Amino acid sequence: MQTLFVELGDRRYPIFIGHQLDGSKLLDQYIQSQQVMIVTNTTVAELYLAHYLKQFQMMGRTVATCILPDGEKYKDFQHLHLIFDALLEANFNRDCTVVALGGGVIGDMAGYAAASFQRGVNFIQIPTTLLSQVDSSVGGKTGINHPLGKNMIGAFKQPEAVIADMAVLDTLPDRELSAGLAEVIKYALLGDVEFLIWLEQNMSKLLDRDREVLAEAVYRCCAHKARIVANDETEKGERALLNLGHTYGHAIESYMGYGNWLHGEAVATGMVMAASLSEQLGWISTEDVARVKDVLIQANLPIASPKIPIDEFLGYMAHDKKVLNGQLRLVLLKCLGEAVITKDFEQSQLIQSIQDNLVA
Amino acid sequence: MQTLFVELGDRRYPIFIGHQLDGSKLLDQYIQSQQVMIVTNTTVAELYLAHYLKQFQMMGRTVATCILPDGEKYKDFQHLHLIFDALLEANFNRDCTVVALGGGVIGDMAGYAAASFQRGVNFIQIPTTLLSQVDSSVGGKTGINHPLGKNMIGAFKQPEAVIADMAVLDTLPDRELSAGLAEVIKYALLGDVEFLIWLEQNMSKLLDRDREVLAEAVYRCCAHKARIVANDETEKGERALLNLGHTYGHAIESYMGYGNWLHGEAVATGMVMAASLSEQLGWISTEDVARVKDVLIQANLPIASPKIPIDEFLGYMAHDKKVLNGQLRLVLLKCLGEAVITKDFEQSQLIQSIQDNLVA
Ligand SMILES: NC(=O)c1ccc[n+]([C@@H]2O[C@H](COP(=O)([O-])OP(=O)(O)OC[C@H]3O[C@@H](n4cnc5c(N)ncnc54)[C@H](O)[C@@H]3O)[C@@H](O)[C@H]2O)c1
Ligand SMILES: NC(=O)c1ccc[n+]([C@@H]2O[C@H](COP(=O)([O-])OP(=O)(O)OC[C@H]3O[C@@H](n4cnc5c(N)ncnc54)[C@H](O)[C@@H]3O)[C@@H](O)[C@H]2O)c1
Ligand SMILES: [Zn+2]
Ligand SMILES: [Zn+2]
Repeated sequence: MQTLFVELGDRRYPIFIGHQLDGSKLLDQYIQSQQVMIVTNTTVAELYLAHYLKQFQMMGRTVATCILPDGEKYKDFQHLHLIFDALLEANFNRDCTVVALGGGVIGDMAGYAAASFQRGVNFIQIPTTLLSQVDSSVGGKTGINHPLGKNMIGAFKQPEAVIADMAVLDTLPDRELSAGLAEVIKYALLGDVEFLIWLEQNMSKLLDRDREVLAEAVYRCCAHKARIVANDETEKGERALLNLGHTYGHAIESYMGYGNWLHGEAVATGMVMAASLSEQLGWISTEDVARVKDVLIQANLPIASPKIPIDEFLGYMAHDKKVLNGQLRLVLLKCLGEAVITKDFEQSQLIQSIQDNLVA
Repeated sequence: MQTLFVELGDRRYPIFIGHQLDGSKLLDQYIQSQQVMIVTNTTVAELYLAHYLKQFQMMGRTVATCILPDGEKYKDFQHLHLIFDALLEANFNRDCTVVALGGGVIGDMAGYAAASFQRGVNFIQIPTTLLSQVDSSVGGKTGINHPLGKNMIGAFKQPEAVIADMAVLDTLPDRELSAGLAEVIKYALLGDVEFLIWLEQNMSKLLDRDREVLAEAVYRCCAHKARIVANDETEKGERALLNLGHTYGHAIESYMGYGNWLHGEAVATGMVMAASLSEQLGWISTEDVARVKDVLIQANLPIASPKIPIDEFLGYMAHDKKVLNGQLRLVLLKCLGEAVITKDFEQSQLIQSIQDNLVA
């Protein structure tokens, strides 16, 4: 097992990464409270809830569960409210702990509930998708969607601990694994070319779910994100670099309707577009762009967007949160392994970067 | 005009107290963002919205409004959601400012919305009731009610500034003014006997809405609360003293149904009960208890509770948040001007303190 710390002063917390972690010891150490509410969804409950329930019961805790329906479309106010209902019906108080057992949807909802219940209770993340292990469980962003926008309502809520167990990834659908790999590749592209080389060499092991190799990848991603979050918890600056590929990806996700393209798939294609624009600016070479595409293809990710009318594509991009005072800012690549946030590109170049990467 | 600061490090903020404050200068200084959302209710909108709208428009800001129905019963999820709807329909972004224009209900809801919209935007409090000026607008507690409990869901969200203008109290109903005075008297009883003397001398001026005297009272209360909040922002210790009279009061409010007894009225009677229990413990004298009653009567506040069956009364008290591990803790008076939090009293004494203060 490897342990990493997110250095946030008195809210410093550990991320445990391993396989078949002895969760009970960690949980016993990091959950001081008697009352434990496990928030999960129907899919994950069937696979892993019994295991965790037993662990908490063996520790003598008072455990209650809140099992939500599975899907991004339930990441809303109505379903958030079900968590509060469960907490209050169980008579839980300010000293309880909320445990998120699931992917990013559950982590975001349970985290926002933990931030809000009685103005804040303890929170533990047990991420069960690759995406949530390398991205959403680290850094404290939590929230829900509004009919008029994704992740529009939420809180910064750091957990007491994150427990990332590679064993649970065995049951993850292939497509979800690949979507998680898109975010893994993102870390390499934006900040660590040596990690990119490592990924190129280890991709087939990752797809085979080799636990040692997965743990290593998760460790490197979390280390990267933890460092950025420690520097810029509330995304005033550097943290925005983590949005590489996301503004483009957001347009694809929005146009296609959430759920048709997975977030990671849209981000993969978005990173290709960001690489294309970086190439036009003369920052990276044609070979670099090809290398970006190759590693994504290796991970079974799409590198071209559905044919979306350009005006609509741009319209969706303009609605993204990274727009400041009407000026679109994008995360682009100075070179492979170094991202910057910039508004210094022509509209024509932006359009080109999209049009060059639509399916034929 | 007097200015006070709540000392919370990089979240330090000013409270401006005066009458017919030149709001425009203050607002211009403390609202840096272009987009301003005024959250208010139908009652307050009719009285004061036009005035503030004009000020913001003169400053060249983009102003939108969200006018909620008036009443504690609308302090819920559905109505919170209306604030998010308004923000998103106006296309407001992370750089907007939410302004609460109203009493504690509006302050709590707008504050929680500001804490949650895009995970946190700027927030300004313009409290328009005495209670919100001396209590709810200071200290950053925000939130909404859940069908199973009051203020169960929320956030700690400090504003950028609080603007307390005595001029708006002219239109406040008498009963609401008195309810606010209950919290004013609370500060005197729990921490400042000299202020108690001042209140005894100035009560009729306060009831006459003498602006100078009101401003002085608000200043003293805010200074007190600001000091406590700076020491204990998230209520791990000292801040709990501000709950003098509240656990008893909570039982009266709950039994009577919210809205029938105002919060301040219930707190007034609760403080009499707390004083009675303190007397039984030998901490304060019979004369002290009489003095507590007298000053409350002077403020037109009730000093006896409706006849609530004792088991129900105790049941409601047990549901209060101050219960830790099943042990009821109460804020009691060591002497007039000094409160402590304690669990060292007999059940029989607790019962006595309630039964001695029911209406005949
Ligand atoms: N908070 C952040 O910083 C952050 C960052 C990135 C993404 N997100 C959010 O995360 C969400 C996406 O997360 P996600 O990709 O984990 O999606 P998800 O939570 O929807 O999980 C994907 C699917 O896998 C299933 N699943 C989860 N664990 C499984 C397992 N071990 N075995 C089998 N099936 C399993 C889920 O039930 C679901 O059907 C989005 O809502 C996104 O907004 C948040
Ligand atoms: N956040 C905190 O720390 C804190 C502390 C104490 C109370 N509270 C909350 O505050 C709320 C009570 O606040 P409140 O007593 O201000 O109640 P309120 O907001 O309901 O206001 C009382 C009434 O006065 C009206 N009103 C407001 N300003 C007026 C004006 N200038 N002229 C005429 N009418 C006016 C309102 O429309 C309402 O009808 C409760 O929800 C309570 O939970 C919060
Ligand atoms: Zn992402
Ligand atoms: Zn109160």
